[in-house]
Amino acid sequence: MTSSLTELLAVEPLDLSLRDELQRLIDTKTKPPGSLGRMETLARQLGMIQRSVRPSVERPVMIVFAGDHGIAAEGVSPYPQAVTAQMVANFLAGGAAINAFSGVAGLTLEIVNAGVATPLPCAPEPAPSLIDAPIARGTRNFAHERAMTRDEALAALAAGAARVRHHAALGTNVIGFGEMGIANTSSAACLMSRLCSVPIDECVGRGTGLDNAGLARKRNVLAAALAHHADAREPLDVLAAFGGFEIAMMAGAFIEAARSRMAILVDGFIATSALLVADSLAPNVRDYCVFAHASNEAGHRRMLDHFGARELLALDLRLGEGTGAALAVPLLRAAVAFLNEMASFESAGVDNRSDRNA
Amino acid sequence: MTSSLTELLAVEPLDLSLRDELQRLIDTKTKPPGSLGRMETLARQLGMIQRSVRPSVERPVMIVFAGDHGIAAEGVSPYPQAVTAQMVANFLAGGAAINAFSGVAGLTLEIVNAGVATPLPCAPEPAPSLIDAPIARGTRNFAHERAMTRDEALAALAAGAARVRHHAALGTNVIGFGEMGIANTSSAACLMSRLCSVPIDECVGRGTGLDNAGLARKRNVLAAALAHHADAREPLDVLAAFGGFEIAMMAGAFIEAARSRMAILVDGFIATSALLVADSLAPNVRDYCVFAHASNEAGHRRMLDHFGARELLALDLRLGEGTGAALAVPLLRAAVAFLNEMASFESAGVDNRSDRNA
Repeated sequence: MTSSLTELLAVEPLDLSLRDELQRLIDTKTKPPGSLGRMETLARQLGMIQRSVRPSVERPVMIVFAGDHGIAAEGVSPYPQAVTAQMVANFLAGGAAINAFSGVAGLTLEIVNAGVATPLPCAPEPAPSLIDAPIARGTRNFAHERAMTRDEALAALAAGAARVRHHAALGTNVIGFGEMGIANTSSAACLMSRLCSVPIDECVGRGTGLDNAGLARKRNVLAAALAHHADAREPLDVLAAFGGFEIAMMAGAFIEAARSRMAILVDGFIATSALLVADSLAPNVRDYCVFAHASNEAGHRRMLDHFGARELLALDLRLGEGTGAALAVPLLRAAVAFLNEMASFESAGVDNRSDRNA
Repeated sequence: MTSSLTELLAVEPLDLSLRDELQRLIDTKTKPPGSLGRMETLARQLGMIQRSVRPSVERPVMIVFAGDHGIAAEGVSPYPQAVTAQMVANFLAGGAAINAFSGVAGLTLEIVNAGVATPLPCAPEPAPSLIDAPIARGTRNFAHERAMTRDEALAALAAGAARVRHHAALGTNVIGFGEMGIANTSSAACLMSRLCSVPIDECVGRGTGLDNAGLARKRNVLAAALAHHADAREPLDVLAAFGGFEIAMMAGAFIEAARSRMAILVDGFIATSALLVADSLAPNVRDYCVFAHASNEAGHRRMLDHFGARELLALDLRLGEGTGAALAVPLLRAAVAFLNEMASFESAGVDNRSDRNA
């Protein structure tokens, strides 16, 4: 690993020196201690990430990375590959779920063409901004060869980081990442299996809706691919072997967001696989993450366990696009609101607990 | 029961005729079928409640009912009774958690003095509106006598309903209810035990933070009270025996909100105990309810099971005030946004599933 890359991967651990002060502040608020549960944990985490006892949510951003996967040729998804480009057009036209949810959450939405295989259809009056910077027109089929070269993987990591730097310069301190890519649950399942040392059967799910026969085929294809790339063990090699350009860019974005001291909203199965890559390259990234929801895609729960994480939302989502991450943004706003706005027992003239239970 | 009361309790069942049309509409959206999970269920429920395939969130309101409990004299809470009035002043001054969360959620906040025991301190520049309409200065101690008379219970039900009618006239179609009342987990536990036929030990929790000795005392006090009022079996008698004025008003508000075809956000342990009362008086009320979160107060999970309900948020809250309900409001906004704004596969020119998995 070059020294400049090492530098790019340097993520500071959270500043724990503020932890006690934040907790003390939370405990003075007019409520029984601990009664806001995980909202208190969230407020404390935001404070430590931002190194402030008055954290805030500023210019929150959702970046959706889109890319295609050569493995789609193996019949691992019920949707044709053209859907990736069609959905990018749908994002740009404002018609997808992430558009609706970003609007409600007040998120600035950006779409990145990380490597879509088919030309993007023209979208009428693009609403969110498009960053059209593909590494290539889809990855190679990792059933037969590595999905991308190490250089392509590095270029994707750097491109993802660059998008985050762009938003950091504009004042963003909360960010979420979404993805679109037909067959990318196959990529994510292999990344998970190799990086977490979990048998592939426990990583494979129905994706966008495979039937039993399709699920069995997907399992066989991915088991063979893992055996084929038995030599890929280093994180960067694992990413090159099985990754997608959207996943690699997202991994780079995760790392840069942590370096920029942003709170990072983690979406579902694919996004968490990108975090697995990011966290194996830069181990402190996870401290900056807020795990939004538990996907219904098999394997996501186990990924959350890997990070010792619990989800905030119990919604049985399995769409991707960053939808779960977007839905969690109001909880961050609420966490900073209670920390900044609530009165203390003293200032409000409210009696604290009596001696009865001391 | 008088005929006019019967009329006031008449809640129409949901109009299921729209169910298939809503589901068809949801399934045309550009996403794999079912992939928005419980957001889809929520959108469908809002459509059926509002009898519309284009449901909306209009002028959402949070009403916090406050009242005191004679049972507090038995030492069942670690906080002194004066805290109820002090917290009402805190609500009016904008310093409580529900103020912060209502602000983030865009909720109109109203505080109702349903029966606070101590005079309300002056609050500087009241922000939310106060409805000062106590039934009495706290309930009687149900360790020795019924908490209220049947007439007081009926008056409280009617007063809660009147607040909802006020907001219905202003166009509100989404409402949540919160509460404040020292010792009201004791009231709620007894209501639950009697109305759900669950042993009291499974209904009693630590409330605002009892220690083990306090918890044991609370259990003994409540077990004795339930035995003392063994004759109270009819819902209205159970409410009169164990209820609080804030719980009774909330029960009346639940019923009227369902009659007004509002979507009702159900908060934690106390609010769900009021729903138990409402639902036992008017069985269709539950169909209008969205269960926001699962409280950390012991017994709430079992109440949710009673309604066959699952929570949306996994936050380990145990504060009350309507805080969990307020945090769920953005999910309702997101549900109507995806239903109203998302493109269909056809309109967006996105290919639907291939035959591969047909």
